[in-house]
Amino acid sequence: MLQTTLDDVLGRVRARLEQDDISGAVALVEALRPPDQADLFAELGSAAQTALLPKLDPGDSADILEELEDDEAARLIDSLTGAERARIVDEMEPDEAADLLAELDEAQVDDILSRLEDPNEVRPLLVHPKDSAGGLMTSSHLALRRRMTVADALATIRALKPDSEEIYHLFVVDQYGRLCGDITFRQLVMADAYALLSEVMDPEVIFVPVGVDQEEVARIVARYDLLALPVVDESGLLVGVITVDDVIDVLVEEATEDIQRLGASEPLDKPYLETTPLTVFRKRIGWLLLLFVTETLTGTVLRHFEAALSTVVSLAFFIPLLIGTGGNAGSQTTSTIIRALALGEMDKKNLLKPLWHELKVGFILGVGMGIVAYIRALLWHTGSGVALTVSLTIFVIVLWANVLGAVLPLLAHKLKIDPTVVSGPAMTTLVDATGLFIYFTVAGIVLSL
Amino acid sequence: MLQTTLDDVLGRVRARLEQDDISGAVALVEALRPPDQADLFAELGSAAQTALLPKLDPGDSADILEELEDDEAARLIDSLTGAERARIVDEMEPDEAADLLAELDEAQVDDILSRLEDPNEVRPLLVHPKDSAGGLMTSSHLALRRRMTVADALATIRALKPDSEEIYHLFVVDQYGRLCGDITFRQLVMADAYALLSEVMDPEVIFVPVGVDQEEVARIVARYDLLALPVVDESGLLVGVITVDDVIDVLVEEATEDIQRLGASEPLDKPYLETTPLTVFRKRIGWLLLLFVTETLTGTVLRHFEAALSTVVSLAFFIPLLIGTGGNAGSQTTSTIIRALALGEMDKKNLLKPLWHELKVGFILGVGMGIVAYIRALLWHTGSGVALTVSLTIFVIVLWANVLGAVLPLLAHKLKIDPTVVSGPAMTTLVDATGLFIYFTVAGIVLSL
Repeated sequence: MLQTTLDDVLGRVRARLEQDDISGAVALVEALRPPDQADLFAELGSAAQTALLPKLDPGDSADILEELEDDEAARLIDSLTGAERARIVDEMEPDEAADLLAELDEAQVDDILSRLEDPNEVRPLLVHPKDSAGGLMTSSHLALRRRMTVADALATIRALKPDSEEIYHLFVVDQYGRLCGDITFRQLVMADAYALLSEVMDPEVIFVPVGVDQEEVARIVARYDLLALPVVDESGLLVGVITVDDVIDVLVEEATEDIQRLGASEPLDKPYLETTPLTVFRKRIGWLLLLFVTETLTGTVLRHFEAALSTVVSLAFFIPLLIGTGGNAGSQTTSTIIRALALGEMDKKNLLKPLWHELKVGFILGVGMGIVAYIRALLWHTGSGVALTVSLTIFVIVLWANVLGAVLPLLAHKLKIDPTVVSGPAMTTLVDATGLFIYFTVAGIVLSL
Repeated sequence: MLQTTLDDVLGRVRARLEQDDISGAVALVEALRPPDQADLFAELGSAAQTALLPKLDPGDSADILEELEDDEAARLIDSLTGAERARIVDEMEPDEAADLLAELDEAQVDDILSRLEDPNEVRPLLVHPKDSAGGLMTSSHLALRRRMTVADALATIRALKPDSEEIYHLFVVDQYGRLCGDITFRQLVMADAYALLSEVMDPEVIFVPVGVDQEEVARIVARYDLLALPVVDESGLLVGVITVDDVIDVLVEEATEDIQRLGASEPLDKPYLETTPLTVFRKRIGWLLLLFVTETLTGTVLRHFEAALSTVVSLAFFIPLLIGTGGNAGSQTTSTIIRALALGEMDKKNLLKPLWHELKVGFILGVGMGIVAYIRALLWHTGSGVALTVSLTIFVIVLWANVLGAVLPLLAHKLKIDPTVVSGPAMTTLVDATGLFIYFTVAGIVLSL
């Protein structure tokens, strides 16, 4: 829905609420689609939210809570009575309900679970880490028995309540509940009514164990173009299903985290404009301080070469240029390598391959930049000695930055640390200190200082 | 499939090919899933590829071509006879076939189109830009007439060839072919057989015009959890459908491009390790040179303040520290703002809001860093004048970097330029030159130089 249309509806809802016309406001909200309802809801004050939520159809309230940020949803749930809470949570998808309950305190969770129609849909989902397959999966899936006929299976599906999450992929289990195949709804409709599912199903079903990381889940769903991915426990029992819409959320969230980390900020947990300046400050100050401390090394290096610097003052003019270019080359490499790692493009056994790749790239870039820097330095009338120093230094720095930009994320990956710790700013800072050292060493040799 | 398993199959395929046992190799390849077939294929030499491809089932060959990079697929297609080409392209999804044909020359395209069973599935897809809704959509969808009964609709679906792309969302059109609703396969199966589709369908269908950018398509599919999104032309005619698997590819590709651009490299068109060092060089050298030229400004600023620099030599020791911290603060802001823009989190009418946000963040960060820098400078025994200069400068630089880091991407966005032109390295470089100017201006005032 367009922002302008949404703003317009928001104005009308506010006017209704001011006239205490709750049912008028309810009608306006219920006409919207869930994500739009949630956007509108987020704009209302908390008094209006608390007044409106229990009056909406519980299905709509559930949709709104699913779309809101978890902490916001928890705050809203907190303002309701026990009965209201349970009525809404009952309508939520089990995986979304579990995410919401994870934000509440234990007494509240027990109270809500005790009031739910079927607490066993939600309870098993509470034990899995949020970023694992178990944390992503929903328990509201349909497992058909392999000894069922096609007609039995269709009757089972027809008996489902029609508002349950739409089922496009159906999974087939044996008598113990172990996953043994999948079948599409379309295959089922097309098949002979008296055939057994074991004859019609595809036994080569793709699945993941419950503990697998969500990034791996996303890679598998993207690679095999799946709409739903079954999750099994250690003994092969089908315990849940991950749907493609949750995978899309994971992909977007992981890319956001990687981009924010690459800028040397801890990932924000909420949309940027909904994060208070103080929280943004807290997410950034740690890295800024750490890099500040590292950057003080540059001062130490400079003081160490104070004599050289005072002999040939014009060397100082090139300092920001040289270390800046090195930092830029390092950032280019780091961002490329980190993305390739995130996409699973790297062969884990052969991490020397990307290093060798960057060595070649760094060599060509270094030669190119060295030539340009030589000409630029000559045009500044600094004399051919300084020009040669600058040119050689930039070659070495660019090559060094490319190698460092490749080695550090690969090393982090090898040590099972998130490679995005090697952000662009971290690269720049490391290259600053080491680059100065390279500069004055080259200057010492070329200019015999 | 695990890499080790794939390597094992690859070895066995190679052994079969060496013994000229083509049919043995074919059997091994056909047992794999399409993405694994494509991975294995990419590892084979081009002679083996050309020998194998026409011998595979055309459906499998089509799947492999769909999974390969477009230029690789075009090279392979080129090595086949006209009849072989047409047989394979006939089995491809129309949207994938159109992407492949876009890589071939006009004579080849005309030849292939003239041999296809139904060239009109592919031909209309050739006219749309690759990154628009039209370029993403497939024409192999099923449009049901609104005056059909549910029984008629089910009979139509049963009559489809069973290997066509699975249809989970069915779209309903009027007698002119204009989109007027959607219905799920499940709703259809559950509905009364004699009901008209116009009574059963959901008339509030979400759609996009054919010219919409693929990023907008991805946002809509992600927001409304869609499995398929219909595409209409100017007159409301249903011209195609975008499926969720293609949207996932767009999301991954756009995030990759943004991350590579944030590192100040032009996006690579292929996976990193498949890109030659020379191509990586070409994607990076442009930015590196442009930033180099910008960075030479720092030399100009330094020469301008040469007198101040020679009066208080210790000022030089802080140069990399100050401009480095400014660049880091700027990169933090830029990456956050660019991601928020990509996610559509910004209200287009009110770009002052994020600016005001960053002004506050910059102020707190600046105060914090200023205090730390003051203490650090005192510990270096530089005297309280220089310490005050460094402290004040870092406050101003951090504030300035935050503002610049917010303004530039927002400005680029406003001018309809990709905001990722303001990469981390670009920010660092801009802050370097302006930061030095700030430093020496503050020093001039505080130290009365």
